Amino acid sequence: MADRGERLAAALAEPELDLALVTDLVNVRYLTGFGGTNGACVCGPDTRVLLTDFRYTERAEAEVSGWEVVTVAEDWLGGIAERLVGRVGFEDDDVSVRTMRRLEEKLAEGVELVPLGNAVGRLRRVKDAAELRAIGAAAELADEVWRWSLERGLAGRAEREVAAAAEARMRELGAEPSFETIVAAGPNGALPHAEPGEREIGRGELVVFDMGAKLGGYCSDGTRTFATGEPGERGREVYALVLEAQRAALEAAVAGVGGEALDAVARDVIDAAGHGERFGHGLGHGVGLEVHEEPRVSRRSEDVLEAGEVVTIEPGVYLPGELGVRIEDLIVVGDGGNENLSGLPKDLQIVD
Amino acid sequence: MADRGERLAAALAEPELDLALVTDLVNVRYLTGFGGTNGACVCGPDTRVLLTDFRYTERAEAEVSGWEVVTVAEDWLGGIAERLVGRVGFEDDDVSVRTMRRLEEKLAEGVELVPLGNAVGRLRRVKDAAELRAIGAAAELADEVWRWSLERGLAGRAEREVAAAAEARMRELGAEPSFETIVAAGPNGALPHAEPGEREIGRGELVVFDMGAKLGGYCSDGTRTFATGEPGERGREVYALVLEAQRAALEAAVAGVGGEALDAVARDVIDAAGHGERFGHGLGHGVGLEVHEEPRVSRRSEDVLEAGEVVTIEPGVYLPGELGVRIEDLIVVGDGGNENLSGLPKDLQIVD
Repeated sequence: MADRGERLAAALAEPELDLALVTDLVNVRYLTGFGGTNGACVCGPDTRVLLTDFRYTERAEAEVSGWEVVTVAEDWLGGIAERLVGRVGFEDDDVSVRTMRRLEEKLAEGVELVPLGNAVGRLRRVKDAAELRAIGAAAELADEVWRWSLERGLAGRAEREVAAAAEARMRELGAEPSFETIVAAGPNGALPHAEPGEREIGRGELVVFDMGAKLGGYCSDGTRTFATGEPGERGREVYALVLEAQRAALEAAVAGVGGEALDAVARDVIDAAGHGERFGHGLGHGVGLEVHEEPRVSRRSEDVLEAGEVVTIEPGVYLPGELGVRIEDLIVVGDGGNENLSGLPKDLQIVD
Repeated sequence: MADRGERLAAALAEPELDLALVTDLVNVRYLTGFGGTNGACVCGPDTRVLLTDFRYTERAEAEVSGWEVVTVAEDWLGGIAERLVGRVGFEDDDVSVRTMRRLEEKLAEGVELVPLGNAVGRLRRVKDAAELRAIGAAAELADEVWRWSLERGLAGRAEREVAAAAEARMRELGAEPSFETIVAAGPNGALPHAEPGEREIGRGELVVFDMGAKLGGYCSDGTRTFATGEPGERGREVYALVLEAQRAALEAAVAGVGGEALDAVARDVIDAAGHGERFGHGLGHGVGLEVHEEPRVSRRSEDVLEAGEVVTIEPGVYLPGELGVRIEDLIVVGDGGNENLSGLPKDLQIVD
């Protein structure tokens, strides 16, 4: 991953920065491969330094190549400050006001700290082949957990029990949840961020089941809505509508399309059916080392999709007090098309 | 927990603040009881406002009493800024530089943001009865997981397997790990922050087993070092030394003692045996909603223990390439004594 440092160094030319100070640990991991819980890196045209403390020296030396590993003994911010020269971009969305003030006190004369914004987050948008394999493996593992969960059945069990069993199974398979699993049945399905509760899943209900795996550092994210017996006309109608919106968005998800325009493709379908108000979140988001990352696919997105980006496509319709449906796939954006990493069927599945 | 807001409001008098803006989610939970993932609160002598967004309105109204629940529609920082007047303390260790700048742009004239430091963290140090019950229950549950783990045996299994099984058992019992479980055998025990690996635990090895449960929001933390068969003279010596240091510190852990002085009690025992250099971390730390919180018990601590604080007492000796021993109890500091929440024996246990 030595090229990642080069790409960051190249991105410093336009804002006329001499160095970037990267403190967000996920970004540090992306750039250097270091997976410990205390680290920072300093990157410039001729500088590639990873700083950590004694607990992680051995680990850093094993994990990192192409970056000099420096162990800071006592004064962490002093150790960082020593390595800064000129105009230095810092991650202003990661560094706290207090840390900034303490760091400024330690800077050599002439060093200037300038907000870098999410420059590394932008580098992370387009995935390389190894990253795509990792995300694909996480998605496959999650699919296996869904199949296992359906075999055990949904009706008659508490939402929380279904979610906990799925997470335990995921861990048995060597992964961990990339976020707290959502199992929301019947009227609970209308709360898009419901925590699974003690409510027993009934018969003839729609069950929103939103889950992701984290494997080798990379995340997956997906949602299916299952029916525990015949969900009735209303349930079938809403399901068909969300599926139609999702398929339209999948058709349109190609390199070059804007996040706002892609969101509109799904939203227009739902709007036309009179449920526009009931789709209260964005269509999707990037997925990688984090389960929510750039780019955004939403009404306010200014991102334009590029080939190699991994995003979710997840329209939903939520009828308060009644039911909810969300269908979410994870795709790799390509030129003129995309690859769908979600292997589960999407026609309405009726399970016990 | 209405009194917590009152205690914070009272703490604003001396730095002459009109309001505190609390953004750290753990602190928000402590003050208001709100457990969602987006919230902030504004607190002053006559102000108790919890802000959240539409996803959590219902939950906040169910969880929170004594605070006005306000749902911010679109502009989160604008919604916060609207409620600020006069001199406002903000959590400068939580607010990022970027958020600070964006918030400043939205402030009404005359509003001044002043670093509040960890004022809420200090309030959290002394636990009330309900908190002590919650921490005690988490510690008991962890003890049960240790006993279960020992019944299944250690020798012949990979460190990672033992740790994963313990965490799975913890989840079956309704809790989750309060941090990543450490199982480090033989020479790995000398790395105080080792990640459990594929190495099989041998016979006659010392196994450092550091684990905590999180139950009802509250954490436990504890460590035992077990022997898989006779650990040899050197192992027994080091074990006896660490236990002697731990018992001396437990004797001395009473309200009024300084964190530095208490650390020295254990450190002196280890120093006198010539292993001072091999005890490279602090003696302990506070435990509560977070597994590491105030007060600190270490060489650089300026804290003085108070009755009702919950801290770990965890000396260790680590001989590189050879072995490690750490023994950690969780205690409630009292006047003239303390209550030990760890229910496991501490004489060297030889297990299979």
